[in-house]
Amino acid sequence: MKFIILRQDTETSARLGRISTAHGEVTTPAFLPVGTAGSVKAMTPAELVDLGVEMILGNAYHLYLRPGSKVVAELGGLHRFISWKRAILTDSGGYQVLSHAKLRKVTEEGVSFQSHLDGSLHYISPEKSIEIQEDLGADIIMAFDECIQYPASYDHARDSLERTLRWAERCRRCQRRTDQALFGIIQGGFFRDLRERGAKDLLRLGFEGFALGGLCVGETKEMMLEVLDTVLPILPVEKPRYLMGVGTPEDLVEGVIRGADLFDCVMPTRHARTGCLFTSFGRVIIKNAQYVRDEGPLDPNCSCYTCLNFSRAYLRYLFLAGEILSARLNTIHNLSYYLTLMRDLRQAIMEGRVVEFRERFYSLREGVYNPQ
Amino acid sequence: MKFIILRQDTETSARLGRISTAHGEVTTPAFLPVGTAGSVKAMTPAELVDLGVEMILGNAYHLYLRPGSKVVAELGGLHRFISWKRAILTDSGGYQVLSHAKLRKVTEEGVSFQSHLDGSLHYISPEKSIEIQEDLGADIIMAFDECIQYPASYDHARDSLERTLRWAERCRRCQRRTDQALFGIIQGGFFRDLRERGAKDLLRLGFEGFALGGLCVGETKEMMLEVLDTVLPILPVEKPRYLMGVGTPEDLVEGVIRGADLFDCVMPTRHARTGCLFTSFGRVIIKNAQYVRDEGPLDPNCSCYTCLNFSRAYLRYLFLAGEILSARLNTIHNLSYYLTLMRDLRQAIMEGRVVEFRERFYSLREGVYNPQ
Repeated sequence: MKFIILRQDTETSARLGRISTAHGEVTTPAFLPVGTAGSVKAMTPAELVDLGVEMILGNAYHLYLRPGSKVVAELGGLHRFISWKRAILTDSGGYQVLSHAKLRKVTEEGVSFQSHLDGSLHYISPEKSIEIQEDLGADIIMAFDECIQYPASYDHARDSLERTLRWAERCRRCQRRTDQALFGIIQGGFFRDLRERGAKDLLRLGFEGFALGGLCVGETKEMMLEVLDTVLPILPVEKPRYLMGVGTPEDLVEGVIRGADLFDCVMPTRHARTGCLFTSFGRVIIKNAQYVRDEGPLDPNCSCYTCLNFSRAYLRYLFLAGEILSARLNTIHNLSYYLTLMRDLRQAIMEGRVVEFRERFYSLREGVYNPQ
Repeated sequence: MKFIILRQDTETSARLGRISTAHGEVTTPAFLPVGTAGSVKAMTPAELVDLGVEMILGNAYHLYLRPGSKVVAELGGLHRFISWKRAILTDSGGYQVLSHAKLRKVTEEGVSFQSHLDGSLHYISPEKSIEIQEDLGADIIMAFDECIQYPASYDHARDSLERTLRWAERCRRCQRRTDQALFGIIQGGFFRDLRERGAKDLLRLGFEGFALGGLCVGETKEMMLEVLDTVLPILPVEKPRYLMGVGTPEDLVEGVIRGADLFDCVMPTRHARTGCLFTSFGRVIIKNAQYVRDEGPLDPNCSCYTCLNFSRAYLRYLFLAGEILSARLNTIHNLSYYLTLMRDLRQAIMEGRVVEFRERFYSLREGVYNPQ
């Protein structure tokens, strides 16, 4: 992996960059659609390419449990298995073990847990996570971290951070493949000094990129932005910065302005399936009765397949009827919205009008969001 | 609607024809994917066009209940509502009232029933069915018939047939729009004399096409073929003949050879969602363990998006993981199989090698099917 900065904004910390991988280039800042279990839900690879997606996210935890990372390796790796020719980043399983698995037990050595699929017993250590991710063969892989729940006590956050740092070092040491970039993950809860320490200690281990974990776990917007304002300025400019699990359209704008390069979130795909749709003027809850005879497009400012061809009335109907096409058309639109937002942000960085972009972005929206 | 015969096979009753509608031409014999409730499940209109679909089927019963045929009319009709620019045929609701509705009560006047969606009370008469179908605005609409269950007694089948004939006449009389072709439906169960009578009486009413209803309801293949052999020779050559709800790939081949022009069936789309896939060498149950590491395409003789891009191992995995992409890729393949079969049959008629086509079709398949 190679990363270059193409342009640094002068008024904000936003930067335009390019990650080069064996599976193509990724222009940053970029949003990675989440393909947890080997499929970005409701989408084909061809549709993702049409939307301009350059990298997707896969999950070590899910793919290890099913179909099994060894099976994926035998079938030629994740790219080939899911027929995705562009870049892939896999998460290490740290967060998923927290959020999905049952009977989780964390020790210094690793984490034992029960599969959420069938209750079978499993064990993932930093070494095992790297082995799984080497079997999957993504372009970027993540260190195995402990992601704590929110809220957490200072002592718990500190102990967990220290363990995550020791695990990060073990991940670094056991990595065998040389064609995968390994990113470290900064934890530390919502304690400024822990986040600072987490960042500085991780820097010394020398990863190819740095991620902020443990965000969007229930904290306020202000708390999240404080973490960004604390950590991002410490990170080396020449390495990509990844906000894991982030976030809303507003979060993306604020993250980009603070100098983040990569984002992933289930929000556009998951909300699509529950009928919550992102538009340039705010969110639309498509099941609402007001749309029953609404012939207009979901978002007149959008040129995705959904908005070009279907009315709000039809989208409402499909959602209420439980048609698969509802999930499809909604997902196409929400991903298009996210991808277009990132494209517009990149254009704004290129043209030196990031501050103006941010103002216009908020002024268009119904529920104006003003982080202090 | 206009129908012309382009070529009559000399060795069989198969014929190549063309139906012209205000929404384009349909080359026959043709298979109509089922878009019961305003969506061919898991497919976009664009994908159907890519597969070469020229006409789809919609359902008066479903669309009357939700979103309401008056709502569809206000939104510019079914074509516009679902964004489908090619031809549509709507079924009258006769069959759906039988198979879906609760507390059904049939009188000479019509059918009262409870909605399968919310238990609300409704009433559909022949006049009401035509009104619904005129509101929907399909290119071809169907007379409201009584479809009896199998098995049925001779007396029940006769009474029902006679009522269906009286209802057909009422449908003819109450039709107001002149831009929709009305097809009559021949019932009569599996009694040769009733089917003959049904066909002859219906002919006198002068419909623009004739359908055989009450097929694929649990009877044997031989019983179905006997009905085709009884009725199809009686029908006027210059009118399209439609086998409603038919059927398996074998049924399509046998129907075409006996001179049928139109077919519809939920089988390719519904089976796709349950993982039963049609291939040139028989059916594949994709969840079977034998495919866990199978890198080959589902059907090496198929050039659909699914077969060109994904392995059996991935299709098996997606099915077991319950991914929406499983329903999508399976539906694309199954519909492609059906559409390709019909295209190959049309080509065989054009080139005068229908008998040869039929022999090769059966010889390729694992479970050879030999109707006596």
